Amino acid sequence: MADGPFNASLIGFGYWGPNLARNISSSPHYRLAYISDTSSERLDAARRSYQSAECVSDPSVALSDPDIDIVFISTPVGSHRELALAAIRNGKHVLVEKPLALDAYSAAELVTLADANGVLLAVDHTFVFTGAVRKLRELVSTGEIGDLRYFDSMRSNLGLVQPDINVLWDLAIHDLSILQFVTEKRPVSVSASGIAHSPSIHESTAYLTLFYEDDFIAHVGTSWMSPVKVRRALIGGTRRMVVYDDIEPSEKIRVYDSGVDKPSGAEASYQTLVQYRTGDMFAPPLETKEALALLMDHLASCIRGQETLLIPGRTGVEIVEILEAANVSLSNRGSPVSISSFSE
Amino acid sequence: MADGPFNASLIGFGYWGPNLARNISSSPHYRLAYISDTSSERLDAARRSYQSAECVSDPSVALSDPDIDIVFISTPVGSHRELALAAIRNGKHVLVEKPLALDAYSAAELVTLADANGVLLAVDHTFVFTGAVRKLRELVSTGEIGDLRYFDSMRSNLGLVQPDINVLWDLAIHDLSILQFVTEKRPVSVSASGIAHSPSIHESTAYLTLFYEDDFIAHVGTSWMSPVKVRRALIGGTRRMVVYDDIEPSEKIRVYDSGVDKPSGAEASYQTLVQYRTGDMFAPPLETKEALALLMDHLASCIRGQETLLIPGRTGVEIVEILEAANVSLSNRGSPVSISSFSE
Amino acid sequence: MADGPFNASLIGFGYWGPNLARNISSSPHYRLAYISDTSSERLDAARRSYQSAECVSDPSVALSDPDIDIVFISTPVGSHRELALAAIRNGKHVLVEKPLALDAYSAAELVTLADANGVLLAVDHTFVFTGAVRKLRELVSTGEIGDLRYFDSMRSNLGLVQPDINVLWDLAIHDLSILQFVTEKRPVSVSASGIAHSPSIHESTAYLTLFYEDDFIAHVGTSWMSPVKVRRALIGGTRRMVVYDDIEPSEKIRVYDSGVDKPSGAEASYQTLVQYRTGDMFAPPLETKEALALLMDHLASCIRGQETLLIPGRTGVEIVEILEAANVSLSNRGSPVSISSFSE
Amino acid sequence: MADGPFNASLIGFGYWGPNLARNISSSPHYRLAYISDTSSERLDAARRSYQSAECVSDPSVALSDPDIDIVFISTPVGSHRELALAAIRNGKHVLVEKPLALDAYSAAELVTLADANGVLLAVDHTFVFTGAVRKLRELVSTGEIGDLRYFDSMRSNLGLVQPDINVLWDLAIHDLSILQFVTEKRPVSVSASGIAHSPSIHESTAYLTLFYEDDFIAHVGTSWMSPVKVRRALIGGTRRMVVYDDIEPSEKIRVYDSGVDKPSGAEASYQTLVQYRTGDMFAPPLETKEALALLMDHLASCIRGQETLLIPGRTGVEIVEILEAANVSLSNRGSPVSISSFSE
Repeated sequence: MADGPFNASLIGFGYWGPNLARNISSSPHYRLAYISDTSSERLDAARRSYQSAECVSDPSVALSDPDIDIVFISTPVGSHRELALAAIRNGKHVLVEKPLALDAYSAAELVTLADANGVLLAVDHTFVFTGAVRKLRELVSTGEIGDLRYFDSMRSNLGLVQPDINVLWDLAIHDLSILQFVTEKRPVSVSASGIAHSPSIHESTAYLTLFYEDDFIAHVGTSWMSPVKVRRALIGGTRRMVVYDDIEPSEKIRVYDSGVDKPSGAEASYQTLVQYRTGDMFAPPLETKEALALLMDHLASCIRGQETLLIPGRTGVEIVEILEAANVSLSNRGSPVSISSFSE
Repeated sequence: MADGPFNASLIGFGYWGPNLARNISSSPHYRLAYISDTSSERLDAARRSYQSAECVSDPSVALSDPDIDIVFISTPVGSHRELALAAIRNGKHVLVEKPLALDAYSAAELVTLADANGVLLAVDHTFVFTGAVRKLRELVSTGEIGDLRYFDSMRSNLGLVQPDINVLWDLAIHDLSILQFVTEKRPVSVSASGIAHSPSIHESTAYLTLFYEDDFIAHVGTSWMSPVKVRRALIGGTRRMVVYDDIEPSEKIRVYDSGVDKPSGAEASYQTLVQYRTGDMFAPPLETKEALALLMDHLASCIRGQETLLIPGRTGVEIVEILEAANVSLSNRGSPVSISSFSE
Repeated sequence: MADGPFNASLIGFGYWGPNLARNISSSPHYRLAYISDTSSERLDAARRSYQSAECVSDPSVALSDPDIDIVFISTPVGSHRELALAAIRNGKHVLVEKPLALDAYSAAELVTLADANGVLLAVDHTFVFTGAVRKLRELVSTGEIGDLRYFDSMRSNLGLVQPDINVLWDLAIHDLSILQFVTEKRPVSVSASGIAHSPSIHESTAYLTLFYEDDFIAHVGTSWMSPVKVRRALIGGTRRMVVYDDIEPSEKIRVYDSGVDKPSGAEASYQTLVQYRTGDMFAPPLETKEALALLMDHLASCIRGQETLLIPGRTGVEIVEILEAANVSLSNRGSPVSISSFSE
Repeated sequence: MADGPFNASLIGFGYWGPNLARNISSSPHYRLAYISDTSSERLDAARRSYQSAECVSDPSVALSDPDIDIVFISTPVGSHRELALAAIRNGKHVLVEKPLALDAYSAAELVTLADANGVLLAVDHTFVFTGAVRKLRELVSTGEIGDLRYFDSMRSNLGLVQPDINVLWDLAIHDLSILQFVTEKRPVSVSASGIAHSPSIHESTAYLTLFYEDDFIAHVGTSWMSPVKVRRALIGGTRRMVVYDDIEPSEKIRVYDSGVDKPSGAEASYQTLVQYRTGDMFAPPLETKEALALLMDHLASCIRGQETLLIPGRTGVEIVEILEAANVSLSNRGSPVSISSFSE
């Protein structure tokens, strides 16, 4: 097993599962042994596409077969905890679809158990493996951007209204993982506001502000009710500002000067303090390999002990903590809520 | 005087004053009699362009000359109250640059005094006279959009940092006037978050959520620190959703279907509740006459008693009330603040 | 055989072949019996993905097996003629990748032979099966656009320089098929200009104007040397003008009024004759099913005699005739060249 | 007179004249002495705005007054020759609105006469004074772009149909002046195609290809019948490619790598020769001063002998020669026409 290919079980073949299946089976690092789903319709579809995998409605064997090295869980979030617990107890490495769990307590429990059992617990925040987000992280970590000032993202479209979670848990979760991966900062409190419309009791439009110990601020706007699809984040620093627009077919990352000029003369004394300068802009070339394929490579290297998880369970817990705090603030029209710390 | 042209004084020839001067002098409804500014440099510029106006550094005569019918005030906001009070006490109609005053108490005082003196008190929220915003109002008032669900706007650029106000008072104020003009709704509370960076003590990036008695919500994002200029608002209703993008050279208003479909079958039971449908989009033609010229026409008609002020002082007070509440919330990391009501 | 599923051979598994294979195998109308390619590397890739198909380097059996109903040919254009002739002589229906052949004489020969053998000869101009192009055809055929005035398209990117054909044969061929499908007009002559840069002897940037018997005109600009990808066509008529931008993620088709106003007054007499009016714009919703899947459905219906080929061999011949004439004009710096008519 | 301010006459106060008047009067280098126009309506407008200028319907005095140093001619093109001849004969410097004349012979006559009389003859191709076009020229002249390969521009909108000229003379003329200014190359022949629609006899959509002695090519597409406004040029060289999009509110100039890679392996042998690489893009900051104001500065420096005309009469002649040749080609469906050379 040390070298692979690793035998893999996939639990859940709904919206995201087929993407996992395609990338597991096309990777030289894995052998897709089981696919499990409770729907016979989806199981039939799995069977047609993956003739060499065993397709089962009961996940028990897929979770317990001694030959299995790793379990990929892409079921509705309500079942993440139970399935991941079973896999971990059976000594399997686990990748759980985001969010890791419905509450931070359960999420932290998984992390503790995985540590105790010596297995990897990864969370599938796929976005951090895109060429664009890795470039953002590089621009920040090399000091190119300078001291971070703000992160401002908008993620909206005409979306499926999820039955069990609100729009922050569905959409902002991507931005939270990008934010954590790029800045490596942890918020101290949040303020969230939003609105639900019947028949749903969950917010379909919501806004989240994250406060930090220093003078950095982050804001995430999300909506399932926007006629136009928006996937845009701005990151501002003392040296550069970056626009990351994921809708653009090319030049997804644009880097701008953010030098500050002090205006002089009559106008200065009248109404300005400082003036920001518009200068050069450049768009760096980006790696275009599919993010999920890179995640598969990364996971295999982690199993072999050659790399450390980029998005470990602990990060998954932190993100759930932020979303839990956001829910409390949402119910209180923006009242600030401190981030609790099950993860520490 | 009843018919005009009306004799006008312009106080303040800084950033916005020249636009007022140009529109006053080119309007058949006014005669530009005085221009006043404390800067000799700006006063020289005024003299060169408006040879027939008397250009004075002391505004007293411009405010008191018995021949003057209306005073346009476009000075820094700190002097609005004093100048407007003098003009009103002298029986002049007044247009005050936004915001009406630095605090709602002073703003309300001006409204009361104007009523008592039988003069008009208008606030220059020019945006509501653009073809785009008037089309938005029409789409809402005719029921085309249906019941309003949300208003979401972003207004950002690399801006002059104002010495005396934060970015909400500088930029969000436009969205608040548009929001009020288009929806005719009044918020009950707000939550605001933002960040200031030294040397300024005022927020240069800030977010404002407005809550209402019903399930409508509004959100305004603003920044002086964005490398890209954004001027975009979304208005969602039960029948239509509208995108208003003021950066677009044409098709500033785009109207989309917002019909809701209930998905059926396996997918429905698995993870969706309702699904929004993407349908036709249309972009109506817009009136292109300059907004400030339309404001001049409108003001003259109001003086003649033919029209009622679209943006009366009372609206200016309401907007300052919202901004005052936002300041309190900003200092408390998003804590909700009720809208006080000096204006009632 | 009359009802299918039809047994299919695929010859050529290079750039486009895998797309055909995927759509043939996922269609209920076909059974993918053979895949043939001269490269052992590509044949291995075919074997891994399509375990139930027989993968052979020599295409003879795939072309002659009595169980085969239809042959899909997606090899380099130089081999189209020979392979299609063999398939037709064996009584198979044929779909040939565009262009049908390297010269109009050979293309016409294929049409004649297919007619004589009572088999279908289709050309794979996939674009005409996209939702956008079918909407364009509908807008024209229903009279929505009015009398056609012009067609103007641009298709460019940083491209692979083809070793055996110029950019018109590689890119303009798409626009020619769209133009023919949407307008059902046939040009009488062409003028083409362009430039080649060593080491290639084929033009990498080229422009093609098509003249018609009436006052309609078409122009196609193409380039393999453009830093930005452009896929845009404008169609103008007496009632409406349409912009078809295939790069846009949504609203690929935008329909504009093209009403004409006669200006009056001084300006009219001075310098204008008529003025075009900018009015409403609307973007209709488009069918999003994959074009190639629709082509597969359509082909099967044609084999069953339920439909008539939308892009028959004859159209493929006409397009090759235009490209041949364009080559002559290219060598003569734009000299007009009449369209010959092997296809009549 | 050697130092100025120079006394100026403006002949023609129609579409462009007011822009000239504004820039002449606000420049420290000129005194606007006369404005002449045959329309009493336009003359009244001139009088209201420029109280210190003498406004006359007969241009004779404005052309002959001994105090006048320079005459600006912005009348319909049919009267350029006669007015410019009169001014030159009276020893005045002249700036003529583009095109210099209706035919190259007349244009060349003006150049000869101006030389003989020792006065400056400039043509108002204002675009070359924009920050964007000057940046293009700098990118080419410094070798940043490498050897030039192609120039491809599109200029279209819903336009006024001109009564006396076709769309090439109205719109392509801008691109021709930019092309000449940026590349300093002269075409040897042209091919043009286009279409006119009654009631006009002049082409409202037209395409122009320019051929050169080397392997550079230029193409200009123009239309008065496009529902969308396009102002875009691409310049390709061996080192860089540039996109100049004048509609963009910022980043009008974008510079891309154009390095060429030779692909290897199976794919290379199958269908590619070379592959262009997509790399970094950058957008340089541009000078934002109004082009016409810079032209005014430049003209005054030329009168003082401190600079040489950037767009002298000779360039105006060359551009008219190209347009004349284009007209001949237009009438012959693209037949190539050599550029005659009155200008040599």
